[in-house]
Amino acid sequence: MKEKNKITDYLSTKEVSAIKKFSKDKQTPFLVINLKKVAERYDELAKNMPFAKIYFAIKANPNNDILKLLKDRGSNFDVASVYEIDQLLELGVSPDRISFGTTIKKEVDIAYAYKKGIRMFATDSKSDVRKIARQAPGSKVFFRIILEGGHADWPLSRKFGAHPDMIFNLIKLGNDLGIIPYGISFHVGSQQRDIGQWDSAISLCKYLFFSLKEEGIKMKAINLGGGFPADYINPTQNVANYAKSITRFLKEDFPGGLPEILIEPGRSIVGDAGVIVTEVVLISKKSEAHNHKWVYLDVGKFGGLIETLDESIKYPIFTEKPFKTKEKMEVILAGPTCDSYDILYENYLYTLPAELEDGDRLWFLTTGAYTQSYSAVCFNGFPPLKAYILK
Amino acid sequence: MKEKNKITDYLSTKEVSAIKKFSKDKQTPFLVINLKKVAERYDELAKNMPFAKIYFAIKANPNNDILKLLKDRGSNFDVASVYEIDQLLELGVSPDRISFGTTIKKEVDIAYAYKKGIRMFATDSKSDVRKIARQAPGSKVFFRIILEGGHADWPLSRKFGAHPDMIFNLIKLGNDLGIIPYGISFHVGSQQRDIGQWDSAISLCKYLFFSLKEEGIKMKAINLGGGFPADYINPTQNVANYAKSITRFLKEDFPGGLPEILIEPGRSIVGDAGVIVTEVVLISKKSEAHNHKWVYLDVGKFGGLIETLDESIKYPIFTEKPFKTKEKMEVILAGPTCDSYDILYENYLYTLPAELEDGDRLWFLTTGAYTQSYSAVCFNGFPPLKAYILK
Repeated sequence: MKEKNKITDYLSTKEVSAIKKFSKDKQTPFLVINLKKVAERYDELAKNMPFAKIYFAIKANPNNDILKLLKDRGSNFDVASVYEIDQLLELGVSPDRISFGTTIKKEVDIAYAYKKGIRMFATDSKSDVRKIARQAPGSKVFFRIILEGGHADWPLSRKFGAHPDMIFNLIKLGNDLGIIPYGISFHVGSQQRDIGQWDSAISLCKYLFFSLKEEGIKMKAINLGGGFPADYINPTQNVANYAKSITRFLKEDFPGGLPEILIEPGRSIVGDAGVIVTEVVLISKKSEAHNHKWVYLDVGKFGGLIETLDESIKYPIFTEKPFKTKEKMEVILAGPTCDSYDILYENYLYTLPAELEDGDRLWFLTTGAYTQSYSAVCFNGFPPLKAYILK
Repeated sequence: MKEKNKITDYLSTKEVSAIKKFSKDKQTPFLVINLKKVAERYDELAKNMPFAKIYFAIKANPNNDILKLLKDRGSNFDVASVYEIDQLLELGVSPDRISFGTTIKKEVDIAYAYKKGIRMFATDSKSDVRKIARQAPGSKVFFRIILEGGHADWPLSRKFGAHPDMIFNLIKLGNDLGIIPYGISFHVGSQQRDIGQWDSAISLCKYLFFSLKEEGIKMKAINLGGGFPADYINPTQNVANYAKSITRFLKEDFPGGLPEILIEPGRSIVGDAGVIVTEVVLISKKSEAHNHKWVYLDVGKFGGLIETLDESIKYPIFTEKPFKTKEKMEVILAGPTCDSYDILYENYLYTLPAELEDGDRLWFLTTGAYTQSYSAVCFNGFPPLKAYILK
């Protein structure tokens, strides 16, 4: 993994000029999505894991242009709410391409999804299994196991899933109640940088497949979840390496032939395709004695950059214009609101040109996932982040 | 400070029935604002600090009905963006009742505010002083000192203000550039439970008044900021006690007569007036061995409860209906989205009736401040929190 320290380590010079040209007359802050890159990332993943059915996690970026592109490429979709189901159906996505993948569901929402034709659900609790049995009989159900989620930049697992012993009992319960226990699912955590996490998760699935078979229940599928990386500051392997290792883990555990495999990428499909363009509002010092300066931007935690919480996701950040001198300064980056939580990076000090001034533009790369949809409706009066599609 | 453990320790029985009746046929989640209580809280503060001009911090809750009520009662307004200025002007608030109180401002926004008639600004940096001098000549300017912000449940100070020595130099710079160095401002942190924090801050102001006088600059005002409490789980003094102590601190430091005093309450005016009504989506266990259950609600961190970050603000939470048995359970409370950050309280375990079921309603009290305006535009497809006004 080579070190990346200039903008062209992330974007081609052609992309840089296209985005610069496109955004010239637009008022900051805004997100630009390069639709071609979404297509590239999807194709790359599909090519490297040809045996897997892709369910795009629409929560990562629910932009209609993105969804239409993925629909046309044959993607399936993982949804987190009935609102996302409605959006997909309006775009003409057939319900048999939709998985209601959240384990937290109201009974009325399960009924609604079923009425709309959805026949694939995920679960991790008794109460939810009973609700699915009542409202969505005969549906294919995935049972989610809990994992530790170590080494993920944005861990996910603590809140979802149940321990394997409990999952074993839930599957038996579901079987008795007339739903189809179809597969085991898990999620190793978003932006998971330790590929070995899939290894132990797949082994757990194998163990469950085996013990359930002894009970006369034949599980048919594994949903490997998401966790495939986007290109942030912390280095990761490329998708081909992820695919290669995961394929090996699967073949080792299922030498007689793979079960049906599903994956739920979100971040890895749309993350790299986004650039947030922001303007420096103010540069200041709190005291003459401080070494670092504060750089306040017109986008912050509540305007789309919520994944900077605990500085979890570190976006590659570059100035739009080149600077003459090589002199650099260490800065604390903060958003524009009157809220101290709206500090982006304070422990990790980014390095920016010492000549940077109010009004200069910064680009936050790899901001295509989990940004616009998170922005606040009107905190401090600021409108939500605008998003533009570059076709 | 007596312990509060039932809903009627926070709301009158009349309020409880009014809210219950009002919300009966509404689909959760939503926020109900009791407008009468906003009026009460405003009047109480005005009565207890009769010498202070109130600038309501509109970011706490920018609902038009609230703003109109406060306008009619004679309140002034503290704004954090030009968008908030536009909103107030549209409601017919005169610009001389508006303070552009954020220290993070674009030059074009200062120019815009000045054009609209705003003549009061806050600052804490050289660059901003120069911008104000260029775009808003002759305006009254408050210079914000930085404080430690200890003991605040939602600290604010690290990001704003500058050290007193630097403020001293900034004031001289402002004076030379033709703006009116009018006052010193500070903010002890939101929901500040240690009244003594105002004491040291006021002493710093006195020191600056004195040393600037020696330079021939006469400061006229102190903006005491916000920090007055709302009624959460952690006990606080009442507003009368705050007012009494702060008045004493002021009189001790300015025995010859008080300077002009401004305050910027937000949370203490609107916090207590709000109730978020939410429904239990799911109750589950991750393992048979765990003592606590997970209770998932249809409102979460990204639907208006962002101040549960780091469990900073602990709202009083009660079930809507009474339960027969006295048996209780300790629970982890979490929101409905597929995001592990969307856990509300995990270290602090709330106690709820053991018979609680999916579909039961919970009330989050004291949710009138910093909730609706923070909610995400469409994270996981969920729409922003609805808000209703109870008149």
